[in-house]
Amino acid sequence: MDLKQVADGIRNFEGVTRKKPIEGIVEIFESVRSEYGGTLVDFGDDAAVIDIDGNDVILFAADSIWEKLMKASPWWAGYTAVLANVNDIAAMGARPLAMVDVISSSDKDSCNTLLKGITDGIKKFGVPMVGGHLHPDTPYSSIAVAIIGIAKKDCIIRSDTAKPGDSIIVAYDMDGRMGPNSPYSWDTTSFKDPETVRNRYLVMQTIGEKKLATSGKDISNPGTIGTLGMLCETSNVGASVDIDKIPFPDGVELEQWLKVYTATGYILTVNSENVDECIQVFNDAGITASVIGEINDTLKLDIYNKDGRETVFDFNTDDITGITCKND
Amino acid sequence: MDLKQVADGIRNFEGVTRKKPIEGIVEIFESVRSEYGGTLVDFGDDAAVIDIDGNDVILFAADSIWEKLMKASPWWAGYTAVLANVNDIAAMGARPLAMVDVISSSDKDSCNTLLKGITDGIKKFGVPMVGGHLHPDTPYSSIAVAIIGIAKKDCIIRSDTAKPGDSIIVAYDMDGRMGPNSPYSWDTTSFKDPETVRNRYLVMQTIGEKKLATSGKDISNPGTIGTLGMLCETSNVGASVDIDKIPFPDGVELEQWLKVYTATGYILTVNSENVDECIQVFNDAGITASVIGEINDTLKLDIYNKDGRETVFDFNTDDITGITCKND
Repeated sequence: MDLKQVADGIRNFEGVTRKKPIEGIVEIFESVRSEYGGTLVDFGDDAAVIDIDGNDVILFAADSIWEKLMKASPWWAGYTAVLANVNDIAAMGARPLAMVDVISSSDKDSCNTLLKGITDGIKKFGVPMVGGHLHPDTPYSSIAVAIIGIAKKDCIIRSDTAKPGDSIIVAYDMDGRMGPNSPYSWDTTSFKDPETVRNRYLVMQTIGEKKLATSGKDISNPGTIGTLGMLCETSNVGASVDIDKIPFPDGVELEQWLKVYTATGYILTVNSENVDECIQVFNDAGITASVIGEINDTLKLDIYNKDGRETVFDFNTDDITGITCKND
Repeated sequence: MDLKQVADGIRNFEGVTRKKPIEGIVEIFESVRSEYGGTLVDFGDDAAVIDIDGNDVILFAADSIWEKLMKASPWWAGYTAVLANVNDIAAMGARPLAMVDVISSSDKDSCNTLLKGITDGIKKFGVPMVGGHLHPDTPYSSIAVAIIGIAKKDCIIRSDTAKPGDSIIVAYDMDGRMGPNSPYSWDTTSFKDPETVRNRYLVMQTIGEKKLATSGKDISNPGTIGTLGMLCETSNVGASVDIDKIPFPDGVELEQWLKVYTATGYILTVNSENVDECIQVFNDAGITASVIGEINDTLKLDIYNKDGRETVFDFNTDDITGITCKND
């Protein structure tokens, strides 16, 4: 395996480079945000966290689906819109409560197929769609979904709180298959019964309640290393990853796997004394989990194996989203 | 004034007819919703209401902006996206907490202008944007915003709870001007300071806490009579409206006014013993309010004046959204 080629491939992967414009939008909204209290976490995490009574917090997120996927498969776009939103909440250790959507449609047939995908997602993940807006007459088709969840304030898993010395754990549901619409989409849910799916995504709630993780994030479009990069960037830390320790499914190349949206997949950072219990919690839920490296203070994300070492991101000079935690 | 022409004009107004496709989408989502607890109100109201602890409720809504307006003025589209979402929460007697957005943009300049509109909306209405998603590379431009708010469970103002015999009150901020982009948009906020704007939209919270209204709804794209029609439809009641009692600004024709998105404007139904106090609360906040008619059990919405009477909507045969309250 050519490590440099792997590093370049991740750095230039569309799932990673497409995150860049977030930076500008965050600066704009941050500039007018300082006067509002109650928001504990906002941009840079999967969901914003809003303190409502000093004890419980409401998590609030929005996600939409790449137009490419809308065209390739409206069903999959609707289903994935639910999946991605549920993951945003679940990854932070919260319980999803409800969703709303805004759908724009140019064509009745694809709109109906999209709605079928959303409905199947609702049934699978067990989170109701409680409102929204349909534009039936647009020249394009799109779907945006927002979601809220609830958690105890001291149990949420943030992505801006990784510390040097933490172990990095990656957790995947390996019982899956490569998605029909993309070589970078791993389907772990469409063929499973709802109870199994819900038990697997709620594993992060258990980890949050047991306080086993110092930080965490769901693996989304930027893939495993890209997602870890975003976590390092917002936490203002570096990381060193032994890529030979990353588990991947039979029949898939590691280089491809590192760019995959893993559906039920998480990156966590964990104090060394909690590593075994954390892995056990994942295993009990049917999820494969392994230590793949360590957080450090270099502000670089390196991958290594027995043949050498390569820097994928150097946050001294590179940005993924450009969002760095300003909380501490 | 030709009452039949007024009634036909409202019934065929795009702001009203465009609500029709909601019906299909609600049926689809209702069919998979029955198993989920905690949702007190969903489709048919401005926001869904989710019970979190038996005492407080979270309100959750989404809105997006007509593509026409996106093209006419990206600034106004961004600003109005904030306004419309804040109104969805405020109209139900709740305090807005936070928003998230999904923005798709085909063109950097109009995207920046849109972001400026959103930012100005955040400053004006005092509700932070805490997260979201930007698609910088779509062939179209669109904005969807979702919002959450909080209220005491027993203080929320719903739109499916009007009862025969209730007085109908309309409330408008008359200190406005016709919007630059549409003859059906009344701007009551862009030229006012934030404190005045916030005090006016929070008037509904006072009305909710004093339990002065049996139901209410903010006047949106369907205009005054169209919005009352939606309220009657979800409440499964009829209404009789004396259109000569509807206040309207100097320099605007009533027929036009009835189709206007009034920005800070509400329809309420009120027990007769609370009418005076309700109007006083509005007046104290600088908002004009008048009794314009009465709720009845005819399932028809009639307008009348000294010259005659016309039925605008007959819910025995017509639908606006097709959503009828199934709660009682």
